[in-house]
Amino acid sequence: MNNLLVAQSGGPTVAINATLVGVLQGVRASSKVDKVFGAKNGIEGAINDNLLDLNELIKDSEALDTLTYTPSSALGSCRYKMKDWKVDEEPYKKIIETFKKHDIKYFIYIGGNDSMDTVDKLSEYCRVNNHDIHVMGGPKTVDNDLNLTDHCPGFGSAAKYIATTISELERDINVYDVPAVTIVEIMGRNAGWLTAASALARVNGGSGPDLIYLCEKVFDYDKFIEDVKDKLKTKPGLIVAISEGIKDSTGAYVSDTMSSGAVDNFGHKYIAGSARALEQLVREKIGCKVRAVELNLMQRSAAHIASETDIIESLMLGQKAFDCVVNGVTGKMAAIKRISNNPYLVEFTAVPVSEVANHEKVVPLEWITAEGNDVTEEMMTYLRPLIMGETNIKYENGIPKQYRLY
Amino acid sequence: MNNLLVAQSGGPTVAINATLVGVLQGVRASSKVDKVFGAKNGIEGAINDNLLDLNELIKDSEALDTLTYTPSSALGSCRYKMKDWKVDEEPYKKIIETFKKHDIKYFIYIGGNDSMDTVDKLSEYCRVNNHDIHVMGGPKTVDNDLNLTDHCPGFGSAAKYIATTISELERDINVYDVPAVTIVEIMGRNAGWLTAASALARVNGGSGPDLIYLCEKVFDYDKFIEDVKDKLKTKPGLIVAISEGIKDSTGAYVSDTMSSGAVDNFGHKYIAGSARALEQLVREKIGCKVRAVELNLMQRSAAHIASETDIIESLMLGQKAFDCVVNGVTGKMAAIKRISNNPYLVEFTAVPVSEVANHEKVVPLEWITAEGNDVTEEMMTYLRPLIMGETNIKYENGIPKQYRLY
Repeated sequence: MNNLLVAQSGGPTVAINATLVGVLQGVRASSKVDKVFGAKNGIEGAINDNLLDLNELIKDSEALDTLTYTPSSALGSCRYKMKDWKVDEEPYKKIIETFKKHDIKYFIYIGGNDSMDTVDKLSEYCRVNNHDIHVMGGPKTVDNDLNLTDHCPGFGSAAKYIATTISELERDINVYDVPAVTIVEIMGRNAGWLTAASALARVNGGSGPDLIYLCEKVFDYDKFIEDVKDKLKTKPGLIVAISEGIKDSTGAYVSDTMSSGAVDNFGHKYIAGSARALEQLVREKIGCKVRAVELNLMQRSAAHIASETDIIESLMLGQKAFDCVVNGVTGKMAAIKRISNNPYLVEFTAVPVSEVANHEKVVPLEWITAEGNDVTEEMMTYLRPLIMGETNIKYENGIPKQYRLY
Repeated sequence: MNNLLVAQSGGPTVAINATLVGVLQGVRASSKVDKVFGAKNGIEGAINDNLLDLNELIKDSEALDTLTYTPSSALGSCRYKMKDWKVDEEPYKKIIETFKKHDIKYFIYIGGNDSMDTVDKLSEYCRVNNHDIHVMGGPKTVDNDLNLTDHCPGFGSAAKYIATTISELERDINVYDVPAVTIVEIMGRNAGWLTAASALARVNGGSGPDLIYLCEKVFDYDKFIEDVKDKLKTKPGLIVAISEGIKDSTGAYVSDTMSSGAVDNFGHKYIAGSARALEQLVREKIGCKVRAVELNLMQRSAAHIASETDIIESLMLGQKAFDCVVNGVTGKMAAIKRISNNPYLVEFTAVPVSEVANHEKVVPLEWITAEGNDVTEEMMTYLRPLIMGETNIKYENGIPKQYRLY
């Protein structure tokens, strides 16, 4: 028996199940795999022998189709970071035990940075210890911060949600003729890709965000207030897009700095986001109407407005990871290489996972304007194709159909 | 010349432009109206003679189609409450002046409670002073709190967004196997209809919110903490849906009570929502992972996931208001009367605006469970049809097309 195990890890995205479906399609089309299992809650499922028999659970094509458009990780997730096996070999031994018990020869781990670290360590462990097990990574991260891939599955859909939402907020805030600032906080502690995607609200002629601040540039409070005052001279309703992770010149998060003194009635510290912090600042320094909006969990789970490009590419990356792992490749991650922008063409490749793990791809500073409050045309060229197309998501009783594995 | 003026007022919704389109369709199909004008920023546009020539601006059917699916008020809005004309006749005189200057014989005002008050006062003023001008109201309010209509345009689309979003959040929060509470704050200061709509996340077998608290019932902090603790015994990931306007036994808003002592580094008061306040409480009393999510402006502007039922009914209400106003009716509001639930059938009627203005239709207490933490099957029966169907919204360059009048 040559069986395959697949698992998902890290924060949920809209596209991580599409990559799982790509793997399952690979299994169905190939004669190289007998059975396919899913590990529950990521690598923890492999350590604890908590596997789901996916041949049994997902039998029909309709289920595969619904799963493709279901947000978050159908197999569950974890935040488990493996130590080096020379430091703690126990989890490695348990994983190999699970693998042997179920005749697992191939393992595909879909996830972000930490998951690629697991792929790196586990493939190395198997190689050194002569276990005939191949390990491949499937990329996934809404933050778009993985190295060696042009972009990451899940990002395009979140970008489409953000661009659409900003364009809708623009309609909303422009109905009144009084000065008002809406500060929209977008995910990204260290990488500002998602915040940059707010600029895509302009693709059909809308003004989009009037100001954009990414976490890659030092955030200057005084400059921010000057920027807002300047923009208010030209129009009453402003949208400001900011990364949750903007930091001041000392390297401190804006959210921490601004809220550090605040306590509630019980004497507990208030935990405010960066938008909420800047809302307070605008109220104090400018005094106009101001509102903080957090796109929160919605931006990574809004499957109803997923990007068709993102979903198809995510599916293809699952197929690519499958194709590699059953053909002798190990210790690599399926990746996207952009061939051209116009027409938009990509290739699917495999890259050394050791060069992906523990790196973070942030926005190049030259893709941020000199003023530091917007993105450049290069950024727009990079982003535009990623939100193209709408998916074939099905509705039932007024809300999108979802597939629940357990 | 017999001209018609239309205006929009109050908070934006996804469906208010569909009602405008219904009026414009009425004008196109009828021989009773020569020209149609739009007042900019609601009744203020009529007072200040700030009119847009809609015959000139919206010429083709494609524009009408795009406008139908564009969120917020294309003509702008205002928050202007007219005083009684016996107290301040000046604005009334100015409106009549504008009407006479442009040969306006018919006026349709699309909006909520305050707008219906304007319709009431203005139609009465015209009647008493023998101005041959007919005034009709078109309902609109995301809060669903207008009297004498089964439900309000804009509500069904917001309900669809909320139900979909809760179902997506449910997928998102269930990936980890650790206790975590997600508190979702939904619009509604006095009426909990939108919060109740969160229960629609269950229509396809999902668990939806685990607890629902509407602003119609007194909010009990201790009971809330007990409810959360109880639910955490059965599953790790909880979703709690609350109205922004939940109040404690003293009648004080939960948001005010909880945040009243908090100040930031500048000594300014923190303005927190009710979800943020309860997030603090759960952190203190239970100590598990907890997160506040505000659906904020998105719930009233997410046109990309509008309810087809809502949009079609909103259009029909515009047509009904038009039909009434050109056939001698004045001082009334177009309204929806539900005929049956299965099949879902409605009739369009006209109701006395004096009985709509300054009333608020809140959720009947018998549609809330005895425990006070969920809604009843009667509520579900009422809500279900309102989110049915997806619209024909068009995309361009990856985001929905919008129509911008100015």
